[in-house]
Order: sequence, then structure tokens, then C-alpha cells
Amino acid sequence: MPQLEPGSLTDLSARIFVSIGAPAEEAHLVAQELVRADLMGVHSHGVMRIPEYVRASETGDVKPGAKITVIEETPTTAIVDCGRNFGQVGAHHAVKVAIAKAKESSIGCVVTRNCHHAGRVGAYAEAAARQDMICLATVTVRRRGHFVTPWGGTQGRLGTNPIAYGVPTDGLPMVTDFATSVIPEGAVRVALKAGAKLPEFAAVDATGKPTLDPALFYGPPMGALLPFGGNVGYKGYALALLAEVLGGALAGSSVEDEARSSNGVWILVLDPTAFLPLADFKRLTSQLVAYMKSSPPAEGQQVLVPGEREFRRLAESDGAVAINEATWVQIQETAAKLGVPFRVDERG
Amino acid sequence: MPQLEPGSLTDLSARIFVSIGAPAEEAHLVAQELVRADLMGVHSHGVMRIPEYVRASETGDVKPGAKITVIEETPTTAIVDCGRNFGQVGAHHAVKVAIAKAKESSIGCVVTRNCHHAGRVGAYAEAAARQDMICLATVTVRRRGHFVTPWGGTQGRLGTNPIAYGVPTDGLPMVTDFATSVIPEGAVRVALKAGAKLPEFAAVDATGKPTLDPALFYGPPMGALLPFGGNVGYKGYALALLAEVLGGALAGSSVEDEARSSNGVWILVLDPTAFLPLADFKRLTSQLVAYMKSSPPAEGQQVLVPGEREFRRLAESDGAVAINEATWVQIQETAAKLGVPFRVDERG
Repeated sequence: MPQLEPGSLTDLSARIFVSIGAPAEEAHLVAQELVRADLMGVHSHGVMRIPEYVRASETGDVKPGAKITVIEETPTTAIVDCGRNFGQVGAHHAVKVAIAKAKESSIGCVVTRNCHHAGRVGAYAEAAARQDMICLATVTVRRRGHFVTPWGGTQGRLGTNPIAYGVPTDGLPMVTDFATSVIPEGAVRVALKAGAKLPEFAAVDATGKPTLDPALFYGPPMGALLPFGGNVGYKGYALALLAEVLGGALAGSSVEDEARSSNGVWILVLDPTAFLPLADFKRLTSQLVAYMKSSPPAEGQQVLVPGEREFRRLAESDGAVAINEATWVQIQETAAKLGVPFRVDERG
Repeated sequence: MPQLEPGSLTDLSARIFVSIGAPAEEAHLVAQELVRADLMGVHSHGVMRIPEYVRASETGDVKPGAKITVIEETPTTAIVDCGRNFGQVGAHHAVKVAIAKAKESSIGCVVTRNCHHAGRVGAYAEAAARQDMICLATVTVRRRGHFVTPWGGTQGRLGTNPIAYGVPTDGLPMVTDFATSVIPEGAVRVALKAGAKLPEFAAVDATGKPTLDPALFYGPPMGALLPFGGNVGYKGYALALLAEVLGGALAGSSVEDEARSSNGVWILVLDPTAFLPLADFKRLTSQLVAYMKSSPPAEGQQVLVPGEREFRRLAESDGAVAINEATWVQIQETAAKLGVPFRVDERG
């Protein structure tokens, strides 16, 4: 597995995005988010996305450098039209608008329109938490990503619809970011290729019967992924639906619209100082972290708080991004195709 | 199982609450919520709570008729001090404050202090949705109810911390309300008495090993309940923690405080008309409901949307509350002890 130097990889990624029309600053923002996701171990939202983003720019699905506009604004709310710019650029803009409103009005709530793939949604929750704000965020997915069945159903009607939050403490913020399905469709593809089984309660076949066989998911006829929750998966289903209400309906976008852009992001930012002094709030959330950790761990386990694993990986990455060989080859091919010179230091 | 006439049962319940000091209107509100929970099939939050509430009034844990005060108010936020009045009275007041703020400022966010057992939290989400508002709500539980372990742990550090939402549609609102644990502690007690097994992924023994044996949950040494999610229970854990951040820390209340009142309720009300015309929003949420139902059901299953099962039970209850014999005996004993005459029509 190639070990790459993060600065050089970020630089190469940014130059690729510049070559397809992104302004330097926006290209750098997207590149930085992708590399940081890899450093945190969230490879599904890392540099493996580069070839996909480049292809999307060719079809007009992503429009690098597109203007981002705030519409339908009130002192507490806004719709941010991302113009199909990179989702990272659009969603970072959206959270900035929400933070500014929360600073003025204690709460800011923003939905996006025309937002391309927003990447790791925890990044936006973290950005707000780093400014001492509480942040909740949900993301919805366009129709071609509807692999998740409503509870009791047999066909996909929802995306992996992740939910995220960020909460400031005296130490690192608590940051969570998880899919409301057990696994994404990509994980079924990987299992099929590898001849592996799926985890329990992750998928059903076309009759709605739980299956561990990736081939029965694909059919035909096709099965579906299950919302998370195991025996009580109706809870994960309710959360997936909420993400669609907030990121879809509230943004004026129909769940059935084939032309919808990749992601609909809903962001709520709440200023804790409307309720109590910041130092008191952070003391109480820090106490909460310590109280969780006072539960002795099960054998071979650790008691962590949300985000801790990712922040630890980031700290332990020791200046090297580990990405898989195939991804690295694809990125080099993409760069070569675009005439972008590459010279990323390998440390492996 | 006794079949009781809801009006008479509500009346009896209200007279019991009046006899322990509640003003007539507040007594009626609490009684109505309990009976409605039973009619919806949510018996854990139904009239079985009456003897418990009466005992709580004797220890001062609940203070019928206590004044409810709005403190730390901004145009979008408030802390509602419920003075240990019945949780139903306090939380209904809190959601009213949040709705009023959302009507003025597009969003209202309220936390409670000194809130006794708030009952079915979906009731508050529904109240907002019936006024064409989106509502999110979380509830946290005091320390003596900390049966749920953080993911990877062995000892309880969180309550069942339910999450609720309400969303208006052209038909019935979507209303969900679920615990972030798989089961409540009460369900373990019932299983122990009945010699039954626990569901999978619901509990661990004192070493943190998953167990189906209710006796191993109680120990000693005691085990814990698991956050919901099965293999990915860290997601349920993250949600339980969020409920504690919002209903606990944000209200200035420490998770370790033994003297804290039963529940800490966080309510967010969001006016969709800040984003789009109400008719458009409801058309889109109604379309979402229809799209879910277009997924063919698995054998023996139904595709429902949140709240549908409860509203259906309410409609099908046909004017009769079914409660179990033991609960009915306890209510009669409580009434007799307080000198409250009872004359509830049995239809069974």
C-alpha cells in the first residue's frame, strides 16, 4: 500500500481540480478534505473520489468554480444554491452561513440546492464545533443512490442518508458522522468481488428476506440494503426519512427527481451561549466524556466518544497517507489524462 | 384484559391528579396524554404510570401545580423551568414556547429544567407538526436510569434517551419516537419474571459479553443495556449521547447529578415556510410517504411511515382502552387510597 506525503498529495489533487476549472482556493479546499478523510481512515470519502469527480465534471454533474448563491434568506434560515460546484465548497459555504446566523440569532439553519457530493459530512459539523457551536447535519442522496429499503419493504427508496453532529468540549470536539444504512452499496460490491459474506441485518433479497449473499442483493431481481438497527431497524429507517425531509423536501426538492444533484445537505447550528456561559457548557460536555469513559471496557474493546477514533488516526498518521494501490494508479492515470504533472513523494 | 371507556378513564385519572394537588386543567392534560398513549398501544407511557406519579408526589419528586417559568430567553431560544410539575404539563408548555418562537423567528429551540417524567415524547413533536411545523425532540434521563452502556463498555452511563420528530404532510403527520437503546430496563424485568429470553444485541453481562439471559443483566455484578444498532450500535450510542448533550449539558445540568429531575427535554421547532410555501412542503412530504409505500412489502410485512401504526391503533380502538388487569387493580387501589371515587365503565 503506497504511503504518500499528505502535502504533496493535496497539491497534486488541487492541481487536478484546477485543471478542470476550479479556482485555486476551492481546488485546495476539496483536495484538503479528501486527504484529511484518508488520514482519518475514512477512505470512502478520500482521494479515491478524484477520478469520479473528474468524470462528473465532464458530464456537467459537477461544475468547478460555479457561483454559490444565498437565496430565501431570513435572520435564522437560508437556502444555499451551490450551483453544482464541488459539494465540499458548497457545504463549507453553507455551514459558514449557518454559523454566522447562529452568532447573530443563536440559531442558523441552512439547506443546500444543487450540491454535488459533499464528502465527509462530519467535516461541516466539526467546523462549527471548532467555533464553539453545536451542529446537527443530515445528507440525502439522489434517486440513483436509493439502495436502502423502507422498513418492511423489498426495494430501495432511500440513500445511505448520513447524520452528523459536532459538539464542543474542553478537548477535541465530539464529532459523529454515520450512514443510516448498515453498509453502503460499495461495500456489497467489494464483498461480491472478494467472495465474502455481508454482515447480518445489512441487506435483503428481492423478496425482502435477509441475506448475507452479495449476489442475492444484486439479483436480478435486485434486493435492497437495510436501514441500521438490526431487529429495530425501523429506527434507522425513521432517521433516513428525516434526512430526506430536511435535505430534500425542505429544500424544495422531490425525492423522485432523477435530475437532482448528488446530495441535499441540511445544517443546523446552535449557539450554546444562548443557554449558558460557554465555559459551563464545555465543562459539562467534558464531564460527559469522562463519565462515558468511566464505564470499564468490555474485553478487547475501548470506550470512545464520537470522533475520537478518527482524530486519533489523524494524530497517528505521522505525516503519511496510506491509500490502496488501485486508487493510486487511477489518480496517476487521471492526472496524466489531464496533463497534470505529478511528483508525489512516496514514503513506503 | 379490562376494556375501559376512555372518557371515564381520563376523568378518573384527572380526579386522582387533582386529589394530589394538580389544577383541573393540568390534571386533565396529564390524564389525556396517558390514556392516548394506551389507545396508541404505547402502554409503557400510559395509565400504568399513575401509581408511580402519585408516589412521586409524596416524595416531592413531582410537584403538581408548580409554576412553570421561562428563563434565559432570546427571540429563538428559551429555558423552561418546569418546577417539577408533571412532565406532560412542562413539556407541553415548552413546545408551545418553541412553536411561538418559530412563528416569529422561523426557529424556536427550548430546553427544560426540573421536568418530571415527560411521557410519550412523540406527543410534543406531534403537537408542533399539527401546527404545520417540523419538530425534533430528544429526552435525557437522570442517573438512576443509566442502564445503557456506551459502545464497548460494560456499565450503564446513559438512559434510554428517546428521540422524536414530527413532520406535517397533507395527511396525518409523520411522528416518530423511539428509545436509543434496543429495550428499556422494564422489558428485562418482564422477561426475567416470565422466564423469557432477551432479544439479540439488547444487553450485555457484567463483562460486556452480549447476553440473552435477563438474570445476567441484573447480576450482581450488574450488566447493561446496549444502544440500538446491532453490529453498528456505536450509532445508537452517538444518538444517546446527543440527547444528553442537548437535554442535559445545554440545560446546565450535569449527567452525574443524582438530584436531577426525571427528564431533560430538548425541543427544536422549525417553520418550513421560511424555506418554501407550506403547500409545496406538504406536497413534497406527502410524495415522500407515497414513494416509501411504492416499495413492495416483504412477505408478512407492511411498509409504514413513522406514526402510522400508532394513529391506526388510535382509530381502531373503537372507544375502548385495553389495559392489563394488574395495572387496573393498582389504579383502583391508588384511587381508593386517595379517597377518589371511581366508576369507570368496563366494556369487556
